[in-house]
Amino acid sequence: MSPASLGEFGRIARFFRPLAAEFPGALGLTDDAALLSVPPGQELVLTTDAIVAGVHFLPTDAPDDIARKALRVNLSDLAAKGARPLAYTLTLAVGRDIGDAWIEAFAAGLAEDQTYYGISLAGGDSVSTGGPVWASITAFGLVDAGRMVTRSGAQPGDVVLVTGTIGDAALGLAVEQGRLSVDAADWNTLVSRYRLPQPRTHLAHAIAAHAHAAIDISDGLAADFGHLCRASGVSGRIVVSRIPQSPAARQAIAASPALMSLVLGGGDDYEVLLTAPANAVPPLIAAAAAAGIGLTAVGIIDRADSDAEVYLIDDDGNRVAVEKAGWTHS
Amino acid sequence: MSPASLGEFGRIARFFRPLAAEFPGALGLTDDAALLSVPPGQELVLTTDAIVAGVHFLPTDAPDDIARKALRVNLSDLAAKGARPLAYTLTLAVGRDIGDAWIEAFAAGLAEDQTYYGISLAGGDSVSTGGPVWASITAFGLVDAGRMVTRSGAQPGDVVLVTGTIGDAALGLAVEQGRLSVDAADWNTLVSRYRLPQPRTHLAHAIAAHAHAAIDISDGLAADFGHLCRASGVSGRIVVSRIPQSPAARQAIAASPALMSLVLGGGDDYEVLLTAPANAVPPLIAAAAAAGIGLTAVGIIDRADSDAEVYLIDDDGNRVAVEKAGWTHS
Repeated sequence: MSPASLGEFGRIARFFRPLAAEFPGALGLTDDAALLSVPPGQELVLTTDAIVAGVHFLPTDAPDDIARKALRVNLSDLAAKGARPLAYTLTLAVGRDIGDAWIEAFAAGLAEDQTYYGISLAGGDSVSTGGPVWASITAFGLVDAGRMVTRSGAQPGDVVLVTGTIGDAALGLAVEQGRLSVDAADWNTLVSRYRLPQPRTHLAHAIAAHAHAAIDISDGLAADFGHLCRASGVSGRIVVSRIPQSPAARQAIAASPALMSLVLGGGDDYEVLLTAPANAVPPLIAAAAAAGIGLTAVGIIDRADSDAEVYLIDDDGNRVAVEKAGWTHS
Repeated sequence: MSPASLGEFGRIARFFRPLAAEFPGALGLTDDAALLSVPPGQELVLTTDAIVAGVHFLPTDAPDDIARKALRVNLSDLAAKGARPLAYTLTLAVGRDIGDAWIEAFAAGLAEDQTYYGISLAGGDSVSTGGPVWASITAFGLVDAGRMVTRSGAQPGDVVLVTGTIGDAALGLAVEQGRLSVDAADWNTLVSRYRLPQPRTHLAHAIAAHAHAAIDISDGLAADFGHLCRASGVSGRIVVSRIPQSPAARQAIAASPALMSLVLGGGDDYEVLLTAPANAVPPLIAAAAAAGIGLTAVGIIDRADSDAEVYLIDDDGNRVAVEKAGWTHS
């Protein structure tokens, strides 16, 4: 296959330069570097995540979805840190069999998300590869100085909350891989949640204002709650029956209760798990409602604990097993 | 092959966390994001470059050399912009056949260069791939506000200068690929110049102080001079006999004069091409000498010219042919 190609410079000029038009520091992608100015009293939050065909997405996924997933997994990290999106750099690696139409669709996906989430392309690199397609993004956000929300601030007595619904993406991957059968409507719901994370960017301001600690759920609810508790030196518990689920996930689990362990361990939710003092819960819930984002109290931070024990418990207080599918995802 | 593996988290803790120890904003690589503070009156310069096995390095290259090349191609961009290195993020993709020893050597290469160039790891991501090994780095530097040196500032009458020697890397690649035979000492010189760029970090302060425009030479001297002239809207000339060459390159060209066109077009030099007014040349040369870096006047910017014509001329004023090997390198 040898589709028409504008070449590297032509593709940058045609498809990517427009993505940088509103960010003066990008210099129109005509230089070796970009320039970021950080307003006085603010700091820059940066995060890097890459996605690889066959690992984080399917090679047959639509290019605009691949682009949006690459950007959104980074936006999700910024949201969990309470940061407002500013700009990002992109490195894209494709084989010589990828034509201009694929690149054009990839850029169109970025354009759509840039508008919705308020972020601009600042620079990048494009390379050719004989292997799978991959995209690596470094995203930049702003926080008021000293106000980045880390994983390590959870305190005993904090309420544990999660945004959105948990488990859809893990179930969606199982559906897409043919390991789980659901009806057509649920197929769409679950698979689209795997393909396209919904970063909680529009809750970032409230997270910055109220959360003691936060993490985005990429390795799985159980694993990421563990990361947060270890970083904070606390133990905590989540009551499994409180975990918010979509109707599609509820229906799948009703038919096959063992799937619950995949919900807890599966990963790729890209929701935010946060902890906050009890008096901050009402304003957080109100801010989430205003942003159209679900926010549910699911647990509590129990005590300072260097062993950082994490309990996922049923309504009788018994521990619930977790399938660790998400843990080694890399 | 299934070498011993610490796993993703284990490798980060053992091999990469020490690289972030001196950069508080990295939070010990324990969070989803890192924090950069930009001092008042300064701006952040950022650049992204990736290298891929089989394209930018050979899969059999030593892992510490691969790591250093990945970092240095980014440091070279910062140097050309007149920026002082601050921090970088790394995404590393390796297959499951890569063992801990390879990763340890890769990190050791980074550690060595971090010390020499004064930069710290701030964050990153590691992913698995079924394809070739690749590393994508985004590097951050600082400049005084408004003082980043771009490609677009060249002015008529400016002297054109280049650091170091030109052509060694292109000849080194030809040697390594068996397309060119040289003696053992020259083999080492040329091949090492291809494998390990020498970013001109220690000249960045003088470039910031004196240069009107600058670019690092990665696509080839002729191509990158063209990029600079187009961005600046000027035409210019380089006198080929003035281009600084290593003894090894001179000897190879003496034996086979046609190689000169590879020197002009070959790429991967990672030297800096800059333009400066004539009265800035003496302090630039002095600063370069103090830093132990060669700096040679090779040409002149002739006039404003929207066609940005670029002349590579011999001593009689005739145009010299260029092999465009470097142009489509991507």
